[in-house]
Amino acid sequence: MRQVREMSRMATEMAEQPTALAALIERRTEIEASVAAVAPRPLAGTVLVARGSSDHAAAGGRYLLEMASGRPTALGSPSITSRYGASIDFSGYLVIALSQSGQTPEISDYLARARAAGGVGIAITNDAGSPLADAADLTIDLATGPERAVPATKTVTAEMLALIMVAGALGQGPVDLDRLEELPAQVAAVLADQGAAEAVAAQLASAARILTVARGILQGAALETALKIEEITGKMVASHSAADFLHGPIAIADADLPVIAFDSPGPTHTDVAELVGKLRARGCAVHVAGPDPSAELPLPAAPEPLASILGVVRGQQIASSLAALLDLDPDRPAGLTKVTVT
Amino acid sequence: MRQVREMSRMATEMAEQPTALAALIERRTEIEASVAAVAPRPLAGTVLVARGSSDHAAAGGRYLLEMASGRPTALGSPSITSRYGASIDFSGYLVIALSQSGQTPEISDYLARARAAGGVGIAITNDAGSPLADAADLTIDLATGPERAVPATKTVTAEMLALIMVAGALGQGPVDLDRLEELPAQVAAVLADQGAAEAVAAQLASAARILTVARGILQGAALETALKIEEITGKMVASHSAADFLHGPIAIADADLPVIAFDSPGPTHTDVAELVGKLRARGCAVHVAGPDPSAELPLPAAPEPLASILGVVRGQQIASSLAALLDLDPDRPAGLTKVTVT
Repeated sequence: MRQVREMSRMATEMAEQPTALAALIERRTEIEASVAAVAPRPLAGTVLVARGSSDHAAAGGRYLLEMASGRPTALGSPSITSRYGASIDFSGYLVIALSQSGQTPEISDYLARARAAGGVGIAITNDAGSPLADAADLTIDLATGPERAVPATKTVTAEMLALIMVAGALGQGPVDLDRLEELPAQVAAVLADQGAAEAVAAQLASAARILTVARGILQGAALETALKIEEITGKMVASHSAADFLHGPIAIADADLPVIAFDSPGPTHTDVAELVGKLRARGCAVHVAGPDPSAELPLPAAPEPLASILGVVRGQQIASSLAALLDLDPDRPAGLTKVTVT
Repeated sequence: MRQVREMSRMATEMAEQPTALAALIERRTEIEASVAAVAPRPLAGTVLVARGSSDHAAAGGRYLLEMASGRPTALGSPSITSRYGASIDFSGYLVIALSQSGQTPEISDYLARARAAGGVGIAITNDAGSPLADAADLTIDLATGPERAVPATKTVTAEMLALIMVAGALGQGPVDLDRLEELPAQVAAVLADQGAAEAVAAQLASAARILTVARGILQGAALETALKIEEITGKMVASHSAADFLHGPIAIADADLPVIAFDSPGPTHTDVAELVGKLRARGCAVHVAGPDPSAELPLPAAPEPLASILGVVRGQQIASSLAALLDLDPDRPAGLTKVTVT
């Protein structure tokens, strides 16, 4: 299977993550101050709006924003305004739109309408000259450099990091600065340790269906890992919250369903560990991603918001390893394009 | 395959839906008045919290609440309070918890905490004596009679109808009364027309993986149909928004992936029709559920909130037909219980 081949763009962009994240961390004070300066006070709530990989950054980030701000956070549905034409009053809301390209019309339209209806709009994007940035009160430029592979990698982890900073601007920050500064080296350590991901990929190569699970903040990593594998390999990968999975979907779990479970020693560990036990009892091969010494996919110990970023990198590695094993081109998955118009 | 067998509890409870829904519609004025009496004014936002099938009622209902109230609606994450111990300020929020049994501790704890933190709490449940009802300012008793089959049916459609009424109490009601009064007969008409569901079930019987899609309000029907098939048959069924599916997951679509697409002549029709075309071009057998004469799964013409309920009934029929074809007991799917503690 191993051939001498050029490094894929996806692999190149994955490798740029420690540098891109370190550059963003250097801008932390400036970013947090700019968010704090525009955020409504009192705050009625926050809304995150995104699609695809960016929506997975939002799915984890919603926990951070809700906990830091102390007010409810919603994941917005663009069709409410774009299709149903409803006018929603966003007074008192901070609305955060995420898009690596900034080119998806429905996302920038949503942000523009939310601002026109009283909300404060922040764009998190890799293109500070994009329509999304034009629609915002404030743009957080991810500045990771161009991303050309169809599967988004460095922009996703940068979006996740940016949301940690937005949360820090709204209240008690979810991660201390000293832990944040460890992140680039930890990402580099995960990237340098390919063996575990390759071993798990070898076990997934013949699977027709795969499951990823997590609970709470780590769900962003589970969702994003599922999407990376789906878009590169065409395998169906379901992703569920460990709590929701018990409400019915566990019926699909059998020996033909390999599982990647994202775990951390935090408050959701008991739920994930309980589900892992039940899945193994049903015959599933479960590969745990986490800092526990027994984990098949080891991750450096880190607070959950950072563990999510490390988990996404592990997921990228698994998807990339699967592409190599299955002789697929990760940069141009069949039938996909980088910017989706809807 | 056809055997003389006792009617399953699931089929019995499905058949009770026209009567249960009609009884709820008769209480519309009283229910809307009681919600209007407790709802905060001004309203900061609404939060829906639920798990499993109830969460699918919430996934469609969030559109109705957001459009009717004119303020953002969030689908709440219980772990933010139950696991991370965050204290969230719910002042000005209407928090609506849905649970057929009212026995899931995390859902009633969430509602109790939200009320203690300034929110107004409504319980939508089939047990007015449950812990969830005890935790609420106001209980909407679905009063559908006991539901004993593990796959929830009549309580789900009743929850969806209750959310139409909550939306009606918060602003411009999503459905006129005369259309609402047509619903029980339309549900009865779908139940009486088994042939279409049986024909589609026959085509799904050998599939290892299935996809359901919709956009906007109808997503509740797509999600619930996926879960019903998963819990009864153990097949993996993914469910995606028609807009999100284009952002990567479409890579999984091929001739081995049958699809059920929920469509209506409303504002999301163009998106669904475009996706159906792309899926067929990739070789998928797509079964459309909707009022169009060409639909494989015909539904009576109805406003989208009611079309969602009709779509859920079609999904129940497909799952139930699959159980018969595969000789499975729909009332006690392998490894599932009616009340899940997490």
